Amino acid sequence: MNFPSKLIENAVEELAKLPGIGRKTALRLALHLLKEESEDTFSLAESLVKMRTDVKHCKQCHNISDSEVCSICANPLRDKSVLCVVSDIRDVIAIENTSQYKGLYHVLGGVISPLEGVGPSDLQIESLLERLPQSEVKELLLAISPTMEGDTTAFYLTRKLRDQNLRITTIARGVPVGGELEYTDEVTLGRSIVERTAYGKV
Amino acid sequence: MNFPSKLIENAVEELAKLPGIGRKTALRLALHLLKEESEDTFSLAESLVKMRTDVKHCKQCHNISDSEVCSICANPLRDKSVLCVVSDIRDVIAIENTSQYKGLYHVLGGVISPLEGVGPSDLQIESLLERLPQSEVKELLLAISPTMEGDTTAFYLTRKLRDQNLRITTIARGVPVGGELEYTDEVTLGRSIVERTAYGKV
Repeated sequence: MNFPSKLIENAVEELAKLPGIGRKTALRLALHLLKEESEDTFSLAESLVKMRTDVKHCKQCHNISDSEVCSICANPLRDKSVLCVVSDIRDVIAIENTSQYKGLYHVLGGVISPLEGVGPSDLQIESLLERLPQSEVKELLLAISPTMEGDTTAFYLTRKLRDQNLRITTIARGVPVGGELEYTDEVTLGRSIVERTAYGKV
Repeated sequence: MNFPSKLIENAVEELAKLPGIGRKTALRLALHLLKEESEDTFSLAESLVKMRTDVKHCKQCHNISDSEVCSICANPLRDKSVLCVVSDIRDVIAIENTSQYKGLYHVLGGVISPLEGVGPSDLQIESLLERLPQSEVKELLLAISPTMEGDTTAFYLTRKLRDQNLRITTIARGVPVGGELEYTDEVTLGRSIVERTAYGKV
């Protein structure tokens, strides 16, 4: 692409480094910023720099946080007997948005994936094992995506934790609410039948 | 959406102001920046601020530029007898990428659109009329999108310019290269027949 300005070219190149943003989209974003008030660009830039500089990771659960200990870990109203293990911060946000979970979290920061060179030591597994004996946790809820890597991670964790006196649970698999039976894959439909629950339970 | 950090929330809100970026995508972008080196975020922010602060508009053609007069207007090798009128800077980039045009440009900065409150005085039409008598332009090539608003703008321009001794042309309409006749709309196919050209001409 020929750019009429080196400054635009730089901005486009930087924007195009973001995931899911190609050079055409980046150009559209750059030209949008040029059309709007310059204050808009300044506050966007400032918010990004501030976030990158000041955001912390909670030293207990490794969730993102504005302080040493995140607002979930610090909340005395949360149920300290349940710990939900997730791979990513986005999973915490997704579960929090359901308003159905009142326990604590532990963010692994990924899943075990030999193909991508991610082993157990690259994840927050050691800190989970250290955290559990000092805690009041009775139940460990594994909320890890049911992919090959996710299942491997869940299996690894259950092996590591089998000597600890913990109830290990996993989120229910089944037909999504509002989903059509016809279009559900066989594995999911099969599990939804095997793990059927009493009608009207929820 | 519940965010575990006010800093992330701010960044997500700023990113979500960009066109085509919703809150979920904005969160993905913010978390991506948090995962990468902080240098990446700083250089992104810096390039945006620099672009917004320092980019100029060419005083001749209103294209974006790093200097008072853009590199196209300043280039002595460009054909000064042809002036291509476009609505947007992106059109200049698109035409430059074809390497088929060697003349100059004039960027209107939009099209006449009464519904959006854009009249002729909001566009760079006055400056076009001022520019033409002092120039060597013999041909005015209208490269404006063939929408209702684009056609209105082109019509307005031709009316304004009819007393000037100019050859007014427009980009060819027809079946796109590689396009299937079957899937081409009737208006385009109709025009491609009416304006048929000698075989092997290009």
